Amino acid sequence: MPRRVVLALACLIPLGAQAQHAGIFLNQQEAEAIRSAQGRYSLMDHSLALAAATMKNAFAQPLEVPPPGEAGGYEHERHKQNYREMRLAGLLFAITQEERYATFVRDMLELYAVMYPTLGPHPLAHHQRPGKIFHQTLNEEVWLVHTSVAYDCVYTWLSEEERERFEANIFRPMADWFSVQNESEFNRIHNHGTWAVAAVGMIGYVMGDLSLVEKALHGSRLDGQGGFLKQLDLLFSPDGYYMEGPYYIRYALMPFFYFAEAVERMQPEQEIYGYRDQILRKAYYAAVQTAFPNGIFPPINDASLTMDVAAPEVVLANALTYDRYGADDILLGVSRFQGRVPLNGGGLVLARDYDASEHEPVMSWPSLELRDGYDGLRGGLGMLRTGDGESQSMLLMKYGVHGSGHGHFDKLHFIFFDQGRQVIRDYGFGRWINVEPKFGGRYLPENDSYAMQTVAHNTVVVDATTQNGFDEDAAEVTSGQRHFFNSSDPAAQIVSARADTYYDGVEMQRTMLLLRHESVRWPVVLDLFRLTSDSAHKYDYPLHYRGQLISTNLDLETHTTALTPLGEDYGYQHIWKTAEAATDSTIRISWLDGSRYYSAISAGADGTIAILGRTGANDPEFNLRSEPLIMLRRQGADHLFVTAIVPHGYFNEARERSDGARPEIVDVRVAGHNDDGSVIEVIGIQGLLWRVMVTNHQPADSTRTHTLTLDGVTHEWTGTHHVETFRY
Amino acid sequence: MPRRVVLALACLIPLGAQAQHAGIFLNQQEAEAIRSAQGRYSLMDHSLALAAATMKNAFAQPLEVPPPGEAGGYEHERHKQNYREMRLAGLLFAITQEERYATFVRDMLELYAVMYPTLGPHPLAHHQRPGKIFHQTLNEEVWLVHTSVAYDCVYTWLSEEERERFEANIFRPMADWFSVQNESEFNRIHNHGTWAVAAVGMIGYVMGDLSLVEKALHGSRLDGQGGFLKQLDLLFSPDGYYMEGPYYIRYALMPFFYFAEAVERMQPEQEIYGYRDQILRKAYYAAVQTAFPNGIFPPINDASLTMDVAAPEVVLANALTYDRYGADDILLGVSRFQGRVPLNGGGLVLARDYDASEHEPVMSWPSLELRDGYDGLRGGLGMLRTGDGESQSMLLMKYGVHGSGHGHFDKLHFIFFDQGRQVIRDYGFGRWINVEPKFGGRYLPENDSYAMQTVAHNTVVVDATTQNGFDEDAAEVTSGQRHFFNSSDPAAQIVSARADTYYDGVEMQRTMLLLRHESVRWPVVLDLFRLTSDSAHKYDYPLHYRGQLISTNLDLETHTTALTPLGEDYGYQHIWKTAEAATDSTIRISWLDGSRYYSAISAGADGTIAILGRTGANDPEFNLRSEPLIMLRRQGADHLFVTAIVPHGYFNEARERSDGARPEIVDVRVAGHNDDGSVIEVIGIQGLLWRVMVTNHQPADSTRTHTLTLDGVTHEWTGTHHVETFRY
Repeated sequence: MPRRVVLALACLIPLGAQAQHAGIFLNQQEAEAIRSAQGRYSLMDHSLALAAATMKNAFAQPLEVPPPGEAGGYEHERHKQNYREMRLAGLLFAITQEERYATFVRDMLELYAVMYPTLGPHPLAHHQRPGKIFHQTLNEEVWLVHTSVAYDCVYTWLSEEERERFEANIFRPMADWFSVQNESEFNRIHNHGTWAVAAVGMIGYVMGDLSLVEKALHGSRLDGQGGFLKQLDLLFSPDGYYMEGPYYIRYALMPFFYFAEAVERMQPEQEIYGYRDQILRKAYYAAVQTAFPNGIFPPINDASLTMDVAAPEVVLANALTYDRYGADDILLGVSRFQGRVPLNGGGLVLARDYDASEHEPVMSWPSLELRDGYDGLRGGLGMLRTGDGESQSMLLMKYGVHGSGHGHFDKLHFIFFDQGRQVIRDYGFGRWINVEPKFGGRYLPENDSYAMQTVAHNTVVVDATTQNGFDEDAAEVTSGQRHFFNSSDPAAQIVSARADTYYDGVEMQRTMLLLRHESVRWPVVLDLFRLTSDSAHKYDYPLHYRGQLISTNLDLETHTTALTPLGEDYGYQHIWKTAEAATDSTIRISWLDGSRYYSAISAGADGTIAILGRTGANDPEFNLRSEPLIMLRRQGADHLFVTAIVPHGYFNEARERSDGARPEIVDVRVAGHNDDGSVIEVIGIQGLLWRVMVTNHQPADSTRTHTLTLDGVTHEWTGTHHVETFRY
Repeated sequence: MPRRVVLALACLIPLGAQAQHAGIFLNQQEAEAIRSAQGRYSLMDHSLALAAATMKNAFAQPLEVPPPGEAGGYEHERHKQNYREMRLAGLLFAITQEERYATFVRDMLELYAVMYPTLGPHPLAHHQRPGKIFHQTLNEEVWLVHTSVAYDCVYTWLSEEERERFEANIFRPMADWFSVQNESEFNRIHNHGTWAVAAVGMIGYVMGDLSLVEKALHGSRLDGQGGFLKQLDLLFSPDGYYMEGPYYIRYALMPFFYFAEAVERMQPEQEIYGYRDQILRKAYYAAVQTAFPNGIFPPINDASLTMDVAAPEVVLANALTYDRYGADDILLGVSRFQGRVPLNGGGLVLARDYDASEHEPVMSWPSLELRDGYDGLRGGLGMLRTGDGESQSMLLMKYGVHGSGHGHFDKLHFIFFDQGRQVIRDYGFGRWINVEPKFGGRYLPENDSYAMQTVAHNTVVVDATTQNGFDEDAAEVTSGQRHFFNSSDPAAQIVSARADTYYDGVEMQRTMLLLRHESVRWPVVLDLFRLTSDSAHKYDYPLHYRGQLISTNLDLETHTTALTPLGEDYGYQHIWKTAEAATDSTIRISWLDGSRYYSAISAGADGTIAILGRTGANDPEFNLRSEPLIMLRRQGADHLFVTAIVPHGYFNEARERSDGARPEIVDVRVAGHNDDGSVIEVIGIQGLLWRVMVTNHQPADSTRTHTLTLDGVTHEWTGTHHVETFRY
């Protein structure tokens, strides 16, 4: 971390107009460097301008510290506004040395110092642990994280008497509330625990009370069973993947990085950024490397469909990772989405390198697999990518742990992202976040009854029930298993995984390929979903798409004058059945989404029922979005679903252009499959033929030779898989 | 037209390397001016670069003039590509003087000169008049318009023998096919006729055959019953409104302006741009002034939802209008959407002024009313606007003529555009344009059975039938009637119109206001739809919205386990009834669309049935989009529907922000109405009260004093309307 050394060493040397205090996030030397760099680096200039504009608005209104109110209400939002403004004011004071900013922080803290001692536990906590200003401790910990940065920045400017009053009336009782009165939450290995320890540790550093820091690092009893280090041990896999998924690590990046940065500055001997083989570097990269090419985080588990890498938490972590772990052009590409940097030395380094970049920085991640589970042995997440920057296509498959209370019952689920959107999509959470008339913005009943259920995902549903019978405890003690992953051949990338403990007596293996060929315009997804069982089951293979159905080779019976739900429970009750067809042959269904056509082409099997559906049944409050799906239903014991998902052609309504409304892939055939392997053929229009062979043998062995004789033809290959491309 | 004079006078003087020919679109002097301006004007540089890139692609492929094929097929598209490339090659030859461009045009014409004489009428014309290269004459006329420009540019470069061959083998027989063999189409007062006369007139100028030009201007029999001038007389209202609507004038702008420009250059004594009090200026302005603030044309009648002012036809007309009728900053704003200019002197003038503009040019039209019908006496189109540029809100009401075969049965229909989108929307046409698997990209059966029907629009449906019983002939002989229009008060703009000849025994008046007040964040639409009849009818008031239902004060019975269609015909058969409620009270329905909430708040009336619906019933091929609507159903003889449509609050899912999910308007009341006037009260949350009085008296008279005593309260005002704003 050479570029930081010079600043870190200087952190206790008073400089400039104000004596330097702790500098947990921004020290005097950095502040001066930012001041003198004004007008030079676009991202920093823009970030300062945004902060100044926010404070201009703040100055135009009277200070207000209202009595506590309900979640999401005016008072709640006002206290959130207050901590954001205090933090910005503190940083701007350090950078500009304009006293009005310090005055703002002091006057606001005076109001809190009057009110806070009068408050008891918030009466509207419901099922959460109550804060005093906010209905839950979580929000109050966020308040203290931000306010610690502000307090640090104005510390030496304040009189001793002011500091004593603020600490006695606010900060010490608040730290006590978090770490003593709510000790179990403080020691919890969970992102709520991280906010708690970050808040207590940060204010500890600013107040010079290292006993609070010790608790924050090692747990309230200093036994290492709780606290920041234990969280770093257990909340991430060895690859840095966070078991709740990208939406939640996005939120937790802020306490992880604010507190780590404070530790690094105040106690560099802790070597916090090196802890657990640089787990914070891995955590940040794992988070941002899951992002879709347009910067949006994939909606794994309970998650918004639109949370992206421009979120403030990611802005913070991006700059600190870049600064602490070394320059990386792709992180500059992330900051292109963000358009701003944090107001500290790390932000300045990033802003400088961004402008110095010779090419426009691009966020373009490679294919990769992330192991899940703190020990790395609990399945994972596979991501295959092709193309560059925002025009990348990405196939994501999920086969890790359940992910606790926000987990979805969706093992072997996949998302296909193409053309800047999810084209085979995840529903996201059943929640209109912060929309007060929609159940207070909280999770809706339909989150449980639909969004979490297996059928809401792109993975096979057995006997029309949900994985683990929708039992979270049962789901928590198991996981998917990695089978093999290989992205070395750009023409045929592949991921394969298993989920054997999700339906009694049924084992599942999914193998997905991202194929490219010069005769096919866009990347093709090939999906082999194999189920084995000793007894017959009903297997439902759903694909959740968007857009308009264009054509199909099915002889559809469309339900034109009456719609009924597809089932009665496990999410099926929320799906209107709009059409169905029976077929034994290859199925082709084509739709239009944006400016591209898509076709799902599935190998035929006797007795297939193809179903078209649309969400919205049993939804009395219109809480669900109305979206279409395709489902293939089959009966059997051992069965292999094989589907090619083919983007094709081009459509532009405004310019009235259309071509390629029929796919370049015309057929998909199963040559055969058994416990040793599966052999598949994909037929294209211009004589293209892919023959795809994959191992089903456990474990997947790169040296094993497979010999399958199917219908009198012998197929032989060595290793996990083999893809042959012919012209026939 | 001073800036053009110097060029026009020069048009027959040979200059530069090539002798000058006619110069129907680009003469030698303009070509030299463009050449010497390279690197100076961004729009022209970009346009030249686009043209050069197209030709680079063209040079990389072999020339191909395939035998005629089916509509939308490869051969069809190839011939379209050929004429586009020939036109660009001709213009680039004139500008760059690079002979490879002229060679391209000549070699292509040689191929056509071989094939064209061998062709008979196209066998796949179906219901259209056949061309020879194309299935219909229309496409072939477009071919000749473009090719005339190309031929003009290379005329003097060609040998006399080549010219004779091209004219004998292609151009003369083609002109004969259009003007003699298909004489009735040529003389038709319709945009197809305009393409025909433009093609024949333009090639006439280039070949020096003024007899063809005479036919083009005055009809094949030179009697003025057909031809360009008669089209200019009858196809536009005195305000320039084109009776088929914006989507179709967009298409027709090209032959109108190409041919007018040729006439102006070759026969300036015709003063074509001055004809009918500058009807072409009015026509262009009327077209582009109907555009939504984001540049998209409102989908009036059969129309795409995405056609916009960046279409090539509008690029052409924008530059020629700017050049011929004088500079206009708003036209520079239009060219900001377009990003390019035509390759001639007009394009150069526009590109120069665009770069010289001190401010970023903005397309921001005022409120206006356009009269409909060639005589201006057949109703019109009212557009109320507030705000600036792309953040404008716009209310459009339609009360003109039917608009011939593409007309919809939608008199008194309205669209509300806000936040960059149609929030109370028109369905557009029932057509997946150029999408071959969707009925060859042609109009679908659902265009007739749904999109054209009254219920597909935001206007009251009487007795669940369509206006004029869906009889086009009956609709053609009548029209809506203007009542009054006043946009002088930015706080209360208003439009009122009548439609009395659409349902037997029922007269209708709709009055709409666009209201602004400092206590209400966004513009409010207030709608007064009054029906009068001697007998009781069923009145259905539909609002077609988009997005997610958020809340309502209705006690909804949602159809959770079975859906059935709302009716059996007149479009009702395509609507699933998703929920309903009975109420006598004020109705509030709120939804989320994009980053804003919207509420429809309707004054209560005894026995109201509120219905929620969604399109998609009786749609076996999934040709319709699935979209929601609200409908209020009442029984009565005389009835006044009053609804406030209120945008409110802010939502940003990615940033997890939401405020104002409840509207600032809480109640709407009818004080009373009779044949003299209506009095309405709108109640806001912070004590705002609007009292709105409008005249129902015919004719609307700005000097008339109205005195209505309603429930013992006397309301008096003078003029068409009066809006009082109170704090209660």
